[in-house]
Amino acid sequence: MILIDGKQTSEAIKAELAAEVENLVRNGGKIPHLAAILVGNDGASETYIASKVKACKKVGFHSSLFRFPDTISETELLAKVTEINNDADIDGLIVQLPLPKHISEKKVTETILPEKDVDGFHPLNVGKLALNLPTFVSATPFGIMQLLERYKIETAGKHCVVLGRSNIVGSPVSILLSRNTYPGNCTVTLCHSKTKNLEFYTKQADILVAALGKPGFVKANMVKEGVVVIDVGITRVEAPGTEKGYRIIGDVDFDEVAPKCSYITPVPGGVGPMTIVALLKNTLLSLKNKQELLTKNPIT
Amino acid sequence: MILIDGKQTSEAIKAELAAEVENLVRNGGKIPHLAAILVGNDGASETYIASKVKACKKVGFHSSLFRFPDTISETELLAKVTEINNDADIDGLIVQLPLPKHISEKKVTETILPEKDVDGFHPLNVGKLALNLPTFVSATPFGIMQLLERYKIETAGKHCVVLGRSNIVGSPVSILLSRNTYPGNCTVTLCHSKTKNLEFYTKQADILVAALGKPGFVKANMVKEGVVVIDVGITRVEAPGTEKGYRIIGDVDFDEVAPKCSYITPVPGGVGPMTIVALLKNTLLSLKNKQELLTKNPIT
Repeated sequence: MILIDGKQTSEAIKAELAAEVENLVRNGGKIPHLAAILVGNDGASETYIASKVKACKKVGFHSSLFRFPDTISETELLAKVTEINNDADIDGLIVQLPLPKHISEKKVTETILPEKDVDGFHPLNVGKLALNLPTFVSATPFGIMQLLERYKIETAGKHCVVLGRSNIVGSPVSILLSRNTYPGNCTVTLCHSKTKNLEFYTKQADILVAALGKPGFVKANMVKEGVVVIDVGITRVEAPGTEKGYRIIGDVDFDEVAPKCSYITPVPGGVGPMTIVALLKNTLLSLKNKQELLTKNPIT
Repeated sequence: MILIDGKQTSEAIKAELAAEVENLVRNGGKIPHLAAILVGNDGASETYIASKVKACKKVGFHSSLFRFPDTISETELLAKVTEINNDADIDGLIVQLPLPKHISEKKVTETILPEKDVDGFHPLNVGKLALNLPTFVSATPFGIMQLLERYKIETAGKHCVVLGRSNIVGSPVSILLSRNTYPGNCTVTLCHSKTKNLEFYTKQADILVAALGKPGFVKANMVKEGVVVIDVGITRVEAPGTEKGYRIIGDVDFDEVAPKCSYITPVPGGVGPMTIVALLKNTLLSLKNKQELLTKNPIT
Protein backbone atom coordinates (compact mmCIF):
# COMPACT_ATOMS: atom_id res chain seq x y z
CA MET A 1 0.00 0.00 0.00
CA ILE A 2 1.34 3.41 -1.00
CA LEU A 3 0.23 6.45 0.95
CA ILE A 4 -0.53 9.41 -1.32
CA ASP A 5 1.12 12.27 0.51
CA GLY A 6 -0.79 15.44 -0.33
CA LYS A 7 1.23 17.55 2.05
CA GLN A 8 4.56 16.61 0.49
CA THR A 9 3.15 16.90 -3.03
CA SER A 10 1.70 20.32 -2.33
CA GLU A 11 5.04 21.48 -0.93
CA ALA A 12 6.82 20.21 -4.04
CA ILE A 13 4.38 22.12 -6.27
CA LYS A 14 4.76 25.26 -4.17
CA ALA A 15 8.53 25.03 -4.62
CA GLU A 16 8.03 24.76 -8.40
CA LEU A 17 5.70 27.77 -8.34
CA ALA A 18 8.17 29.79 -6.26
CA ALA A 19 10.91 29.02 -8.78
CA GLU A 20 8.61 30.08 -11.62
CA VAL A 21 7.77 33.38 -9.90
CA GLU A 22 11.47 34.05 -9.28
CA ASN A 23 12.09 33.44 -12.95
CA LEU A 24 9.25 35.80 -13.92
CA VAL A 25 10.66 38.55 -11.70
CA ARG A 26 14.19 38.02 -13.03
CA ASN A 27 12.87 38.59 -16.54
CA GLY A 28 11.07 41.77 -15.52
CA GLY A 29 7.66 40.10 -15.53
CA LYS A 30 4.65 40.83 -13.41
CA ILE A 31 4.15 39.12 -10.07
CA PRO A 32 0.94 37.03 -9.87
CA HIS A 33 -1.66 38.69 -7.66
CA LEU A 34 -4.57 36.93 -5.95
CA ALA A 35 -7.39 38.91 -4.33
CA ALA A 36 -9.73 37.40 -1.76
CA ILE A 37 -12.97 38.74 -0.34
CA LEU A 38 -14.05 37.64 3.12
CA VAL A 39 -17.44 38.61 4.50
CA GLY A 40 -18.14 38.18 8.21
CA ASN A 41 -16.20 36.29 10.87
CA ASP A 42 -16.93 32.59 10.36
CA GLY A 43 -14.16 30.59 12.04
CA ALA A 44 -13.61 28.03 9.31
CA SER A 45 -13.65 30.75 6.63
CA GLU A 46 -11.05 32.75 8.58
CA THR A 47 -8.80 29.68 8.71
CA TYR A 48 -9.16 28.92 5.00
CA ILE A 49 -8.50 32.51 3.95
CA ALA A 50 -5.49 32.81 6.28
CA SER A 51 -3.89 29.71 4.76
CA LYS A 52 -4.54 30.98 1.23
CA VAL A 53 -2.86 34.31 2.02
CA LYS A 54 0.04 32.46 3.66
CA ALA A 55 0.45 30.19 0.64
CA CYS A 56 0.59 33.24 -1.68
CA LYS A 57 3.37 34.71 0.43
CA LYS A 58 5.28 31.43 0.41
CA VAL A 59 5.44 31.23 -3.39
CA GLY A 60 6.07 34.95 -3.87
CA PHE A 61 2.61 35.99 -5.09
CA HIS A 62 1.03 39.26 -4.12
CA SER A 63 -2.23 38.88 -2.27
CA SER A 64 -4.94 41.32 -1.23
CA LEU A 65 -7.54 40.51 1.37
CA PHE A 66 -10.71 42.59 1.38
CA ARG A 67 -12.74 42.15 4.55
CA PHE A 68 -16.32 43.24 5.06
CA PRO A 69 -18.74 42.95 7.98
CA ASP A 70 -21.66 40.57 7.38
CA THR A 71 -23.93 43.60 7.20
CA ILE A 72 -22.54 44.55 3.77
CA SER A 73 -25.31 44.77 1.17
CA GLU A 74 -25.35 42.66 -1.96
CA THR A 75 -25.06 45.80 -4.08
CA GLU A 76 -21.95 46.96 -2.23
CA LEU A 77 -20.34 43.52 -2.52
CA LEU A 78 -21.09 43.28 -6.24
CA ALA A 79 -19.60 46.76 -6.70
CA LYS A 80 -16.40 45.59 -5.01
CA VAL A 81 -16.26 42.51 -7.26
CA THR A 82 -16.64 44.75 -10.31
CA GLU A 83 -13.91 47.07 -9.04
CA ILE A 84 -11.53 44.10 -8.70
CA ASN A 85 -12.60 42.80 -12.12
CA ASN A 86 -11.40 46.11 -13.55
CA ASP A 87 -8.13 46.20 -11.60
CA ALA A 88 -5.47 45.24 -14.14
CA ASP A 89 -2.97 44.26 -11.48
CA ILE A 90 -5.19 41.54 -9.98
CA ASP A 91 -5.02 38.18 -11.79
CA GLY A 92 -7.35 36.09 -9.67
CA LEU A 93 -10.33 36.78 -7.41
CA ILE A 94 -11.98 34.48 -4.93
CA VAL A 95 -14.93 35.19 -2.69
CA GLN A 96 -14.88 32.95 0.35
CA LEU A 97 -18.12 31.00 0.71
CA PRO A 98 -20.54 30.74 2.43
CA LEU A 99 -21.92 34.28 2.26
CA PRO A 100 -24.60 35.74 4.57
CA LYS A 101 -28.13 34.71 3.58
CA HIS A 102 -29.12 38.12 2.23
CA ILE A 103 -26.45 37.89 -0.49
CA SER A 104 -26.94 35.64 -3.52
CA GLU A 105 -23.85 33.43 -3.95
CA LYS A 106 -24.98 32.70 -7.48
CA LYS A 107 -25.07 36.40 -8.36
CA VAL A 108 -21.66 37.02 -6.80
CA THR A 109 -20.11 34.01 -8.56
CA GLU A 110 -21.55 35.08 -11.91
CA THR A 111 -20.29 38.66 -11.45
CA ILE A 112 -16.66 37.60 -11.10
CA LEU A 113 -14.97 37.98 -14.49
CA PRO A 114 -14.54 34.42 -15.86
CA GLU A 115 -10.93 35.31 -16.74
CA LYS A 116 -10.22 35.98 -13.04
CA ASP A 117 -12.42 33.20 -11.62
CA VAL A 118 -9.55 31.08 -10.26
CA ASP A 119 -12.00 29.09 -8.12
CA GLY A 120 -13.54 27.83 -11.39
CA PHE A 121 -17.11 28.30 -10.13
CA HIS A 122 -18.46 30.59 -12.89
CA PRO A 123 -20.91 28.68 -15.15
CA LEU A 124 -18.83 29.65 -18.20
CA ASN A 125 -15.77 27.94 -16.70
CA VAL A 126 -17.82 24.91 -15.62
CA GLY A 127 -19.11 24.68 -19.21
CA LYS A 128 -15.61 24.86 -20.63
CA LEU A 129 -14.61 22.06 -18.28
CA ALA A 130 -17.51 19.91 -19.51
CA LEU A 131 -16.54 20.68 -23.13
CA ASN A 132 -12.89 19.84 -22.44
CA LEU A 133 -11.80 23.41 -23.28
CA PRO A 134 -8.95 25.14 -21.41
CA THR A 135 -10.28 26.67 -18.20
CA PHE A 136 -9.78 27.01 -14.45
CA VAL A 137 -10.53 23.66 -12.84
CA SER A 138 -11.88 24.14 -9.32
CA ALA A 139 -9.66 23.43 -6.35
CA THR A 140 -10.58 19.94 -5.16
CA PRO A 141 -10.97 18.28 -8.58
CA PHE A 142 -7.73 19.96 -9.68
CA GLY A 143 -5.95 18.67 -6.57
CA ILE A 144 -7.19 15.12 -7.20
CA MET A 145 -5.99 15.20 -10.82
CA GLN A 146 -2.58 16.44 -9.67
CA LEU A 147 -2.25 13.62 -7.14
CA LEU A 148 -3.16 10.96 -9.71
CA GLU A 149 -0.67 12.47 -12.14
CA ARG A 150 2.22 12.97 -9.73
CA TYR A 151 1.84 9.42 -8.41
CA LYS A 152 1.66 8.19 -12.04
CA ILE A 153 -1.52 6.25 -11.31
CA GLU A 154 -2.86 4.53 -14.40
CA THR A 155 -6.40 5.68 -15.22
CA ALA A 156 -7.16 4.67 -18.84
CA GLY A 157 -9.80 1.93 -19.03
CA LYS A 158 -10.09 1.78 -15.24
CA HIS A 159 -13.49 1.79 -13.56
CA CYS A 160 -13.71 4.90 -11.42
CA VAL A 161 -16.61 5.07 -8.98
CA VAL A 162 -17.38 8.52 -7.60
CA LEU A 163 -19.50 8.82 -4.44
CA GLY A 164 -21.32 12.14 -4.26
CA ARG A 165 -22.63 14.44 -7.01
CA SER A 166 -21.84 17.90 -5.60
CA ASN A 167 -21.10 20.76 -7.98
CA ILE A 168 -17.70 21.33 -6.43
CA VAL A 169 -16.36 17.76 -6.21
CA GLY A 170 -18.31 14.72 -7.40
CA SER A 171 -19.75 16.07 -10.64
CA PRO A 172 -16.60 17.78 -11.96
CA VAL A 173 -14.38 14.83 -10.95
CA SER A 174 -16.67 12.45 -12.85
CA ILE A 175 -16.46 14.72 -15.91
CA LEU A 176 -12.67 15.11 -15.70
CA LEU A 177 -11.98 11.40 -15.31
CA SER A 178 -14.19 10.57 -18.31
CA ARG A 179 -12.25 12.83 -20.67
CA ASN A 180 -10.01 11.55 -23.44
CA THR A 181 -6.75 12.57 -21.77
CA TYR A 182 -4.52 11.71 -18.81
CA PRO A 183 -5.61 11.61 -16.02
CA GLY A 184 -8.86 10.41 -17.59
CA ASN A 185 -10.24 7.81 -19.96
CA CYS A 186 -11.85 6.05 -17.00
CA THR A 187 -15.21 4.37 -17.25
CA VAL A 188 -16.92 6.50 -14.61
CA THR A 189 -19.90 5.63 -12.42
CA LEU A 190 -21.41 8.50 -10.44
CA CYS A 191 -23.23 7.38 -7.26
CA HIS A 192 -25.25 9.52 -4.86
CA SER A 193 -27.92 9.50 -2.18
CA LYS A 194 -30.47 7.89 -4.53
CA THR A 195 -28.15 5.06 -5.56
CA LYS A 196 -29.49 1.65 -4.57
CA ASN A 197 -27.13 -1.07 -3.35
CA LEU A 198 -24.06 1.16 -3.20
CA GLU A 199 -21.65 -1.69 -2.42
CA PHE A 200 -22.53 -3.27 -5.76
CA TYR A 201 -20.73 -0.31 -7.38
CA THR A 202 -17.96 0.38 -4.87
CA LYS A 203 -16.82 -3.26 -5.12
CA GLN A 204 -16.28 -2.77 -8.85
CA ALA A 205 -14.06 0.29 -8.39
CA ASP A 206 -10.46 0.32 -9.56
CA ILE A 207 -10.43 3.94 -8.39
CA LEU A 208 -12.84 5.09 -5.68
CA VAL A 209 -13.40 8.80 -5.06
CA ALA A 210 -15.36 9.32 -1.84
CA ALA A 211 -16.95 12.75 -1.55
CA LEU A 212 -20.06 12.13 0.51
CA GLY A 213 -19.30 13.97 3.72
CA LYS A 214 -20.11 10.87 5.82
CA PRO A 215 -17.21 10.18 8.19
CA GLY A 216 -15.85 6.61 8.05
CA PHE A 217 -18.59 5.51 5.66
CA VAL A 218 -16.51 3.32 3.31
CA LYS A 219 -15.64 0.01 4.98
CA ALA A 220 -13.22 -2.74 3.95
CA ASN A 221 -15.99 -5.06 2.74
CA MET A 222 -17.11 -2.41 0.25
CA VAL A 223 -13.91 -2.34 -1.82
CA LYS A 224 -11.84 -4.83 -3.75
CA GLU A 225 -8.20 -5.73 -3.27
CA GLY A 226 -5.83 -3.29 -5.02
CA VAL A 227 -8.23 -0.32 -5.22
CA VAL A 228 -6.96 3.28 -5.42
CA VAL A 229 -8.84 5.34 -2.82
CA ILE A 230 -9.15 9.13 -2.95
CA ASP A 231 -10.84 10.36 0.22
CA VAL A 232 -12.31 13.85 -0.09
CA GLY A 233 -14.23 13.84 3.18
CA ILE A 234 -13.29 16.41 5.84
CA THR A 235 -15.79 16.15 8.66
CA ARG A 236 -14.94 17.64 12.05
CA VAL A 237 -15.82 15.26 14.87
CA GLU A 238 -15.50 16.09 18.55
CA ALA A 239 -12.40 14.65 20.17
CA PRO A 240 -12.31 15.62 23.85
CA GLY A 241 -8.82 15.68 25.30
CA THR A 242 -7.11 16.63 22.02
CA GLU A 243 -5.55 20.07 21.68
CA LYS A 244 -8.16 21.44 19.25
CA GLY A 245 -11.05 19.48 20.73
CA TYR A 246 -11.89 17.94 17.33
CA ARG A 247 -10.42 15.67 14.71
CA ILE A 248 -10.86 15.74 10.93
CA ILE A 249 -12.30 12.45 9.65
CA GLY A 250 -12.53 11.33 6.03
CA ASP A 251 -15.33 9.41 4.29
CA VAL A 252 -13.22 6.23 4.40
CA ASP A 253 -12.53 4.05 7.42
CA PHE A 254 -8.79 4.33 6.86
CA ASP A 255 -7.59 1.66 9.28
CA GLU A 256 -9.90 -0.96 7.79
CA VAL A 257 -9.63 0.01 4.14
CA ALA A 258 -5.95 0.97 3.73
CA PRO A 259 -4.56 -2.62 3.86
CA LYS A 260 -6.63 -3.52 0.76
CA CYS A 261 -5.49 -0.48 -1.28
CA SER A 262 -2.74 -0.07 -3.83
CA TYR A 263 -2.86 3.68 -3.11
CA ILE A 264 -4.83 5.72 -0.59
CA THR A 265 -4.99 9.37 0.47
CA PRO A 266 -4.99 9.95 4.24
CA VAL A 267 -7.23 12.50 5.98
CA PRO A 268 -5.84 14.95 6.91
CA GLY A 269 -2.79 15.34 4.65
CA GLY A 270 -4.25 13.91 1.43
CA VAL A 271 -6.51 15.91 -0.87
CA GLY A 272 -6.85 18.85 1.57
CA PRO A 273 -3.42 20.45 1.17
CA MET A 274 -3.73 20.21 -2.63
CA THR A 275 -6.70 22.55 -2.86
CA ILE A 276 -4.72 25.70 -2.06
CA VAL A 277 -2.06 24.72 -4.58
CA ALA A 278 -4.79 24.56 -7.23
CA LEU A 279 -5.72 28.16 -6.48
CA LEU A 280 -2.10 29.28 -6.86
CA LYS A 281 -1.67 27.38 -10.14
CA ASN A 282 -4.87 28.92 -11.50
CA THR A 283 -3.75 32.42 -10.52
CA LEU A 284 -0.46 31.94 -12.38
CA LEU A 285 -2.40 30.50 -15.34
CA SER A 286 -4.63 33.60 -15.37
CA LEU A 287 -1.56 35.84 -15.58
CA LYS A 288 -0.11 33.72 -18.40
CA ASN A 289 -3.43 33.74 -20.32
CA LYS A 290 -3.54 37.53 -20.10
CA GLN A 291 0.02 37.86 -21.34
CA GLU A 292 -0.70 35.49 -24.21
CA LEU A 293 -3.72 37.60 -25.18
CA LEU A 294 -1.60 40.75 -25.01
CA THR A 295 1.02 39.18 -27.26
CA LYS A 296 -1.66 38.28 -29.79
CA ASN A 297 -3.48 41.63 -29.50
CA PRO A 298 -0.89 44.17 -28.28
CA ILE A 299 -2.21 47.43 -26.89
CA THR A 300 -0.57 50.00 -29.16
CA MET B 1 -42.14 -4.67 -24.90
CA ILE B 2 -43.40 -1.12 -25.44
CA LEU B 3 -42.20 0.79 -28.47
CA ILE B 4 -41.33 4.41 -27.62
CA ASP B 5 -42.90 6.30 -30.50
CA GLY B 6 -40.87 9.47 -31.03
CA LYS B 7 -42.83 10.46 -34.10
CA GLN B 8 -46.18 10.38 -32.31
CA THR B 9 -44.74 12.06 -29.20
CA SER B 10 -43.18 14.84 -31.25
CA GLU B 11 -46.49 15.41 -33.06
CA ALA B 12 -48.28 15.62 -29.70
CA ILE B 13 -45.76 18.20 -28.45
CA LYS B 14 -46.06 20.19 -31.68
CA ALA B 15 -49.83 20.30 -31.20
CA GLU B 16 -49.29 21.62 -27.64
CA LEU B 17 -46.88 24.25 -28.94
CA ALA B 18 -49.28 25.30 -31.71
CA ALA B 19 -52.03 25.76 -29.09
CA GLU B 20 -49.67 27.83 -26.95
CA VAL B 21 -48.74 30.07 -29.88
CA GLU B 22 -52.40 30.53 -30.74
CA ASN B 23 -53.02 31.54 -27.17
CA LEU B 24 -50.11 34.00 -27.25
CA VAL B 25 -51.44 35.62 -30.41
CA ARG B 26 -54.97 35.80 -29.02
CA ASN B 27 -53.59 37.74 -26.05
CA GLY B 28 -51.70 40.14 -28.28
CA GLY B 29 -48.35 38.51 -27.56
CA LYS B 30 -45.31 38.19 -29.77
CA ILE B 31 -44.91 35.21 -32.09
CA PRO B 32 -41.77 33.13 -31.35
CA HIS B 33 -39.13 33.63 -34.04
CA LEU B 34 -36.30 31.21 -34.83
CA ALA B 35 -33.43 32.24 -37.11
CA ALA B 36 -31.17 29.70 -38.80
CA ILE B 37 -27.89 30.21 -40.63
CA LEU B 38 -26.89 27.71 -43.31
CA VAL B 39 -23.47 27.91 -44.95
CA GLY B 40 -22.80 25.93 -48.13
CA ASN B 41 -24.83 23.17 -49.78
CA ASP B 42 -24.24 20.00 -47.77
CA GLY B 43 -27.08 17.57 -48.48
CA ALA B 44 -27.72 16.43 -44.92
CA SER B 45 -27.57 20.01 -43.61
CA GLU B 46 -30.09 21.11 -46.26
CA THR B 47 -32.46 18.35 -45.11
CA TYR B 48 -32.09 19.20 -41.40
CA ILE B 49 -32.62 22.93 -41.96
CA ALA B 50 -35.62 22.33 -44.23
CA SER B 51 -37.33 20.21 -41.58
CA LYS B 52 -36.59 22.81 -38.89
CA VAL B 53 -38.16 25.57 -41.01
CA LYS B 54 -41.12 23.31 -41.75
CA ALA B 55 -41.62 22.52 -38.06
CA CYS B 56 -41.64 26.26 -37.22
CA LYS B 57 -44.36 26.82 -39.78
CA LYS B 58 -46.38 23.91 -38.42
CA VAL B 59 -46.53 25.32 -34.88
CA GLY B 60 -47.02 28.92 -35.99
CA PHE B 61 -43.52 30.27 -35.28
CA HIS B 62 -41.84 32.76 -37.53
CA SER B 63 -38.59 31.52 -39.01
CA SER B 64 -35.82 33.22 -40.95
CA LEU B 65 -33.27 31.29 -42.95
CA PHE B 66 -30.02 33.08 -43.80
CA ARG B 67 -28.04 31.27 -46.49
CA PHE B 68 -24.42 31.92 -47.40
CA PRO B 69 -22.04 30.35 -49.90
CA ASP B 70 -19.20 28.33 -48.34
CA THR B 71 -16.82 31.07 -49.44
CA ILE B 72 -18.16 33.42 -46.72
CA SER B 73 -15.35 34.60 -44.42
CA GLU B 74 -15.35 33.98 -40.70
CA THR B 75 -15.53 37.74 -40.08
CA GLU B 76 -18.61 38.13 -42.27
CA LEU B 77 -20.34 35.19 -40.59
CA LEU B 78 -19.57 36.50 -37.09
CA ALA B 79 -20.94 39.90 -38.14
CA LYS B 80 -24.18 38.24 -39.22
CA VAL B 81 -24.41 36.40 -35.89
CA THR B 82 -23.93 39.70 -34.04
CA GLU B 83 -26.58 41.36 -36.19
CA ILE B 84 -29.07 38.61 -35.28
CA ASN B 85 -28.02 38.82 -31.60
CA ASN B 86 -29.10 42.47 -31.73
CA ASP B 87 -32.37 41.85 -33.55
CA ALA B 88 -35.02 42.14 -30.86
CA ASP B 89 -37.60 40.23 -32.89
CA ILE B 90 -35.49 37.04 -33.10
CA ASP B 91 -35.77 34.77 -30.06
CA GLY B 92 -33.53 31.90 -31.09
CA LEU B 93 -30.55 31.48 -33.39
CA ILE B 94 -29.00 28.28 -34.67
CA VAL B 95 -26.04 27.90 -37.00
CA GLN B 96 -26.20 24.58 -38.82
CA LEU B 97 -23.02 22.55 -38.32
CA PRO B 98 -20.63 21.50 -39.77
CA LEU B 99 -19.14 24.75 -41.09
CA PRO B 100 -16.43 25.00 -43.76
CA LYS B 101 -12.91 24.34 -42.43
CA HIS B 102 -11.79 27.99 -42.60
CA ILE B 103 -14.44 29.00 -40.04
CA SER B 104 -14.01 28.21 -36.34
CA GLU B 105 -17.16 26.48 -35.06
CA LYS B 106 -16.04 27.27 -31.53
CA LYS B 107 -15.79 30.99 -32.29
CA VAL B 108 -19.22 31.02 -33.97
CA THR B 109 -20.86 29.09 -31.12
CA GLU B 110 -19.35 31.41 -28.53
CA THR B 111 -20.49 34.51 -30.44
CA ILE B 112 -24.15 33.53 -30.33
CA LEU B 113 -25.79 35.35 -27.43
CA PRO B 114 -26.35 32.70 -24.70
CA GLU B 115 -29.92 34.01 -24.30
CA LYS B 116 -30.62 33.10 -27.96
CA ASP B 117 -28.54 29.91 -28.07
CA VAL B 118 -31.50 27.53 -28.44
CA ASP B 119 -29.14 24.74 -29.53
CA GLY B 120 -27.61 24.91 -26.03
CA PHE B 121 -24.03 24.68 -27.36
CA HIS B 122 -22.59 27.85 -25.78
CA PRO B 123 -20.18 26.98 -22.91
CA LEU B 124 -22.21 29.20 -20.56
CA ASN B 125 -25.32 27.13 -21.23
CA VAL B 126 -23.39 23.86 -20.94
CA GLY B 127 -22.08 25.09 -17.58
CA LYS B 128 -25.57 25.97 -16.39
CA LEU B 129 -26.68 22.48 -17.38
CA ALA B 130 -23.84 20.95 -15.33
CA LEU B 131 -24.75 23.18 -12.37
CA ASN B 132 -28.44 22.28 -12.66
CA LEU B 133 -29.42 25.89 -13.39
CA PRO B 134 -32.22 26.78 -15.83
CA THR B 135 -30.85 26.79 -19.39
CA PHE B 136 -31.37 25.55 -22.94
CA VAL B 137 -30.75 21.81 -22.99
CA SER B 138 -29.42 20.73 -26.38
CA ALA B 139 -31.69 18.93 -28.81
CA THR B 140 -30.89 15.23 -28.43
CA PRO B 141 -30.54 15.13 -24.63
CA PHE B 142 -33.71 17.22 -24.35
CA GLY B 143 -35.55 14.81 -26.66
CA ILE B 144 -34.43 11.82 -24.60
CA MET B 145 -35.59 13.43 -21.35
CA GLN B 146 -38.97 14.21 -22.94
CA LEU B 147 -39.42 10.60 -24.07
CA LEU B 148 -38.59 9.22 -20.61
CA GLU B 149 -41.00 11.70 -19.05
CA ARG B 150 -43.89 11.25 -21.48
CA TYR B 151 -43.65 7.45 -21.20
CA LYS B 152 -43.48 7.83 -17.39
CA ILE B 153 -40.38 5.65 -17.22
CA GLU B 154 -39.07 5.31 -13.68
CA THR B 155 -35.49 6.59 -13.39
CA ALA B 156 -34.74 7.17 -9.67
CA GLY B 157 -32.20 4.66 -8.36
CA LYS B 158 -31.94 2.93 -11.74
CA HIS B 159 -28.55 2.13 -13.24
CA CYS B 160 -28.25 4.05 -16.48
CA VAL B 161 -25.36 3.08 -18.74
CA VAL B 162 -24.48 5.62 -21.42
CA LEU B 163 -22.39 4.51 -24.40
CA GLY B 164 -20.42 7.40 -25.93
CA ARG B 165 -19.03 10.59 -24.37
CA SER B 166 -19.72 13.15 -27.10
CA ASN B 167 -20.33 16.77 -26.13
CA ILE B 168 -23.72 16.76 -27.81
CA VAL B 169 -25.18 13.48 -26.54
CA GLY B 170 -23.33 11.13 -24.17
CA SER B 171 -21.82 13.68 -21.77
CA PRO B 172 -24.91 15.90 -21.30
CA VAL B 173 -27.23 12.86 -21.02
CA SER B 174 -25.01 11.41 -18.28
CA ILE B 175 -25.12 14.75 -16.44
CA LEU B 176 -28.90 15.14 -16.83
CA LEU B 177 -29.72 11.63 -15.64
CA SER B 178 -27.52 12.06 -12.55
CA ARG B 179 -29.36 15.17 -11.37
CA ASN B 180 -31.60 15.23 -8.34
CA THR B 181 -34.85 15.57 -10.30
CA TYR B 182 -37.13 13.65 -12.65
CA PRO B 183 -36.06 12.35 -15.12
CA GLY B 184 -32.85 11.79 -13.19
CA ASN B 185 -31.54 10.36 -9.94
CA CYS B 186 -30.03 7.47 -11.89
CA THR B 187 -26.71 5.94 -10.94
CA VAL B 188 -24.96 6.72 -14.22
CA THR B 189 -22.03 4.92 -15.82
CA LEU B 190 -20.43 6.66 -18.81
CA CYS B 191 -18.69 4.25 -21.21
CA HIS B 192 -16.61 5.14 -24.27
CA SER B 193 -13.95 3.91 -26.68
CA LYS B 194 -11.43 3.35 -23.87
CA THR B 195 -13.86 1.27 -21.76
CA LYS B 196 -12.63 -2.28 -21.25
CA ASN B 197 -15.09 -5.18 -21.23
CA LEU B 198 -18.08 -3.11 -22.32
CA GLU B 199 -20.59 -5.96 -21.87
CA PHE B 200 -19.74 -6.02 -18.17
CA TYR B 201 -21.41 -2.60 -17.93
CA THR B 202 -24.18 -2.93 -20.52
CA LYS B 203 -25.45 -6.08 -18.79
CA GLN B 204 -25.97 -4.06 -15.60
CA ALA B 205 -28.07 -1.40 -17.31
CA ASP B 206 -31.67 -0.77 -16.29
CA ILE B 207 -31.59 2.04 -18.86
CA LEU B 208 -29.16 1.87 -21.77
CA VAL B 209 -28.47 4.97 -23.88
CA ALA B 210 -26.52 4.03 -27.01
CA ALA B 211 -24.80 6.98 -28.69
CA LEU B 212 -21.73 5.44 -30.27
CA GLY B 213 -22.45 5.80 -33.98
CA LYS B 214 -21.76 2.10 -34.58
CA PRO B 215 -24.70 0.59 -36.47
CA GLY B 216 -26.17 -2.56 -34.89
CA PHE B 217 -23.45 -2.65 -32.22
CA VAL B 218 -25.59 -3.59 -29.20
CA LYS B 219 -26.60 -7.27 -29.35
CA ALA B 220 -29.10 -9.27 -27.29
CA ASN B 221 -26.39 -10.96 -25.20
CA MET B 222 -25.17 -7.55 -24.02
CA VAL B 223 -28.35 -6.53 -22.20
CA LYS B 224 -30.49 -7.90 -19.42
CA GLU B 225 -34.18 -8.81 -19.51
CA GLY B 226 -36.45 -5.77 -18.96
CA VAL B 227 -33.94 -3.08 -19.99
CA VAL B 228 -35.09 0.32 -21.30
CA VAL B 229 -33.15 1.05 -24.51
CA ILE B 230 -32.72 4.54 -25.96
CA ASP B 231 -31.01 4.28 -29.35
CA VAL B 232 -29.41 7.53 -30.49
CA GLY B 233 -27.50 6.08 -33.47
CA ILE B 234 -28.39 7.36 -36.95
CA THR B 235 -25.92 5.87 -39.40
CA ARG B 236 -26.75 5.84 -43.12
CA VAL B 237 -25.96 2.47 -44.68
CA GLU B 238 -26.30 1.72 -48.37
CA ALA B 239 -29.45 -0.16 -49.28
CA PRO B 240 -29.52 -0.78 -53.01
CA GLY B 241 -33.00 -1.26 -54.39
CA THR B 242 -34.67 1.04 -51.84
CA GLU B 243 -36.12 4.34 -52.99
CA LYS B 244 -33.45 6.52 -51.32
CA GLY B 245 -30.62 4.04 -51.81
CA TYR B 246 -29.84 4.02 -48.08
CA ARG B 247 -31.35 3.09 -44.73
CA ILE B 248 -30.88 4.70 -41.31
CA ILE B 249 -29.53 2.19 -38.78
CA GLY B 250 -29.32 2.68 -35.01
CA ASP B 251 -26.58 1.56 -32.62
CA VAL B 252 -28.80 -1.29 -31.41
CA ASP B 253 -29.58 -4.51 -33.26
CA PHE B 254 -33.31 -3.88 -32.90
CA ASP B 255 -34.61 -7.29 -34.02
CA GLU B 256 -32.37 -9.12 -31.56
CA VAL B 257 -32.60 -6.72 -28.62
CA ALA B 258 -36.26 -5.55 -28.69
CA PRO B 259 -37.76 -8.81 -27.33
CA LYS B 260 -35.69 -8.41 -24.11
CA CYS B 261 -36.72 -4.77 -23.53
CA SER B 262 -39.44 -3.24 -21.39
CA TYR B 263 -39.20 -0.12 -23.61
CA ILE B 264 -37.18 0.61 -26.73
CA THR B 265 -36.89 3.48 -29.21
CA PRO B 266 -36.90 2.43 -32.86
CA VAL B 267 -34.59 3.94 -35.50
CA PRO B 268 -35.90 5.83 -37.36
CA GLY B 269 -38.90 7.23 -35.48
CA GLY B 270 -37.48 7.23 -31.94
CA VAL B 271 -35.12 9.93 -30.68
CA GLY B 272 -34.70 11.56 -34.12
CA PRO B 273 -38.09 13.29 -34.45
CA MET B 274 -37.75 14.64 -30.90
CA THR B 275 -34.70 16.78 -31.64
CA ILE B 276 -36.58 19.37 -33.69
CA VAL B 277 -39.26 19.63 -31.02
CA ALA B 278 -36.51 20.49 -28.52
CA LEU B 279 -35.47 23.42 -30.68
CA LEU B 280 -39.02 24.71 -30.83
CA LYS B 281 -39.51 24.37 -27.09
CA ASN B 282 -36.25 26.24 -26.44
CA THR B 283 -37.25 29.05 -28.81
CA LEU B 284 -40.53 29.50 -26.96
CA LEU B 285 -38.63 29.37 -23.66
CA SER B 286 -36.29 32.11 -24.88
CA LEU B 287 -39.27 34.35 -25.66
CA LYS B 288 -40.77 33.65 -22.24
CA ASN B 289 -37.46 34.35 -20.46
CA LYS B 290 -37.21 37.70 -22.25
CA GLN B 291 -40.75 38.63 -21.29
CA GLU B 292 -40.11 37.69 -17.68
CA LEU B 293 -37.00 39.91 -17.64
CA LEU B 294 -39.01 42.77 -19.16
CA THR B 295 -41.66 42.38 -16.49
CA LYS B 296 -39.01 42.57 -13.78
CA ASN B 297 -37.06 45.41 -15.43
CA PRO B 298 -39.54 47.31 -17.61
CA ILE B 299 -38.08 49.66 -20.23
CA THR B 300 -39.50 53.03 -19.21
